[in-house]
Amino acid sequence: MKVSELGEFGLIERLSKLIPINDKDVVVGFGDDTACINVNGQLLLLTGDIQVENRHFIKDKIDPIDLGWKLISSNVSDVVACGGIPRWGLISLGLPKDLEYEFIHNVYKGFKQALDYYKMFIIGGNTSSSSEIILDFFLVGETERFVSRSGAKPDQAIFISDEIGMSRAGLELLLMGKSSYEDFEKRLIKFHTRPKARIDLQYKIQKYAESCIDISDGLVGDLNHISEKSKVKIIIEKDKLPLNDDLKKYCEKYNKNIYDYILYGGEDYQLAFSVKNENKKYFENIFEIGVVQEGKGIYLKDKENLIKLEPKGFEHL
Amino acid sequence: MKVSELGEFGLIERLSKLIPINDKDVVVGFGDDTACINVNGQLLLLTGDIQVENRHFIKDKIDPIDLGWKLISSNVSDVVACGGIPRWGLISLGLPKDLEYEFIHNVYKGFKQALDYYKMFIIGGNTSSSSEIILDFFLVGETERFVSRSGAKPDQAIFISDEIGMSRAGLELLLMGKSSYEDFEKRLIKFHTRPKARIDLQYKIQKYAESCIDISDGLVGDLNHISEKSKVKIIIEKDKLPLNDDLKKYCEKYNKNIYDYILYGGEDYQLAFSVKNENKKYFENIFEIGVVQEGKGIYLKDKENLIKLEPKGFEHL
Repeated sequence: MKVSELGEFGLIERLSKLIPINDKDVVVGFGDDTACINVNGQLLLLTGDIQVENRHFIKDKIDPIDLGWKLISSNVSDVVACGGIPRWGLISLGLPKDLEYEFIHNVYKGFKQALDYYKMFIIGGNTSSSSEIILDFFLVGETERFVSRSGAKPDQAIFISDEIGMSRAGLELLLMGKSSYEDFEKRLIKFHTRPKARIDLQYKIQKYAESCIDISDGLVGDLNHISEKSKVKIIIEKDKLPLNDDLKKYCEKYNKNIYDYILYGGEDYQLAFSVKNENKKYFENIFEIGVVQEGKGIYLKDKENLIKLEPKGFEHL
Repeated sequence: MKVSELGEFGLIERLSKLIPINDKDVVVGFGDDTACINVNGQLLLLTGDIQVENRHFIKDKIDPIDLGWKLISSNVSDVVACGGIPRWGLISLGLPKDLEYEFIHNVYKGFKQALDYYKMFIIGGNTSSSSEIILDFFLVGETERFVSRSGAKPDQAIFISDEIGMSRAGLELLLMGKSSYEDFEKRLIKFHTRPKARIDLQYKIQKYAESCIDISDGLVGDLNHISEKSKVKIIIEKDKLPLNDDLKKYCEKYNKNIYDYILYGGEDYQLAFSVKNENKKYFENIFEIGVVQEGKGIYLKDKENLIKLEPKGFEHL
């Protein structure tokens, strides 16, 4: 059997069973956006994200400064989704011997911009040669409360932290390789190349979210993780989904269905989370899109119709 | 300029300057066996080690169980060198799509053996496809005292934790690809395939070593890091270097100079450290090989001659 037959999630599930965890200081192991340990009463969040050339990025099509920015942002997004702030990172590099120094120098420029923005530091790492460029980032965060995927309960409201779907449109625009882009297209591309993790929401997520997930693999796929871990049904109300103006223009121009982008696009680095009714007031400026009910699965409520949505999250294997 | 022109250490030094650290909770950043952070008074050690197919191992020539064992052992060795115990690991995998599941299953068997031996857990990770097999391990350890490379002072004694040089001989034997091996050769191969990090010495290192380093890149190269960081001269007394019996047989049989293996062989996962005279009594059963003096560089004292040794540590780039 080949590893690709198992898929990313199937492989991780199978392998993690081979190394069971039996440690009273481990609050959360595999299966959430981050692991969580208790160090003398301080909760630490641990996460990592490996980026491989030609799988996650094409060297000649990405600005290395953006590559550095995105790698850190994706890890920060996982930490914020669990309620935490990012603190310390380690970076592992695999670099082809004939890679120009300038490329990795610019990746580090992107790191620096992100480190300053998120107020954190890289404190170690290691390097090897390799045939493809490999960037593997490990991040340690801190939180006072671990917000998991398993805390959703019936009657809680479902929120998303902003409009979504723009990153996928931006990627498609980039891949078109056009010689010039309209202004709204440039803005969509920027959503893809310079996503910002929602560090600004960290305190409210830590305090008031009952469950939360980084929806970088797509809204339905990631809400399905909350649904499965929390053993609940989630209803998304179509009318409540926010429609980004530039994404609307894109879908009109290229004859696309905007809900494909909102429901299944990924890499926006926004958050989906559930909140008790009495705490909805803390999230007035963002988007309540649905509700948690007893049952299972993800449904889209369109006027009176309830349509079951199949999760088709992005797998990296 | 290509990255290979800078070399592994030159590249890391140049890049780490681009991301300066300014965080009162960071006790040690780049430049030691691990980084060290202070979490509410608890010192944590952070380290990582990336292993790339065809660079660190050849898939068809390594037992995947050994590969898993070695990856964890190499990280544990870094933590012990800084005085700590290993606690929590994260593993990043890059796997070719057509890799047989059995291979990675057996790598995890090796992980499990090592986790049990070192009494630690893997609590998270992530996976991607890649063209070569990539294993990147990130380890968090704990210590009560950080033992650095910079604490060596004149008059301290230099110790190594065991006989060394056997791992390189074992690697050479493996690469010979012989159809049968003598018993002493099998033992040398095992030094290479199943090195044990010196977790048994952790408490004494933490308490009584003034400086310490994992000598997996070779004795002279790694002692040179202590010499540079501590700004001292280190004298190795040739007569005090322990000679492993099997390594002696190997060097006789294949007409090799045993001191090439002891001084420059790597991957033994033993430790070199300096100790104040009044604390030498705690290390009676291991090997005192030299002394720290004012000055710089590494010297070999052979009867009355003092020979300057050039560091030629292994670079992974």
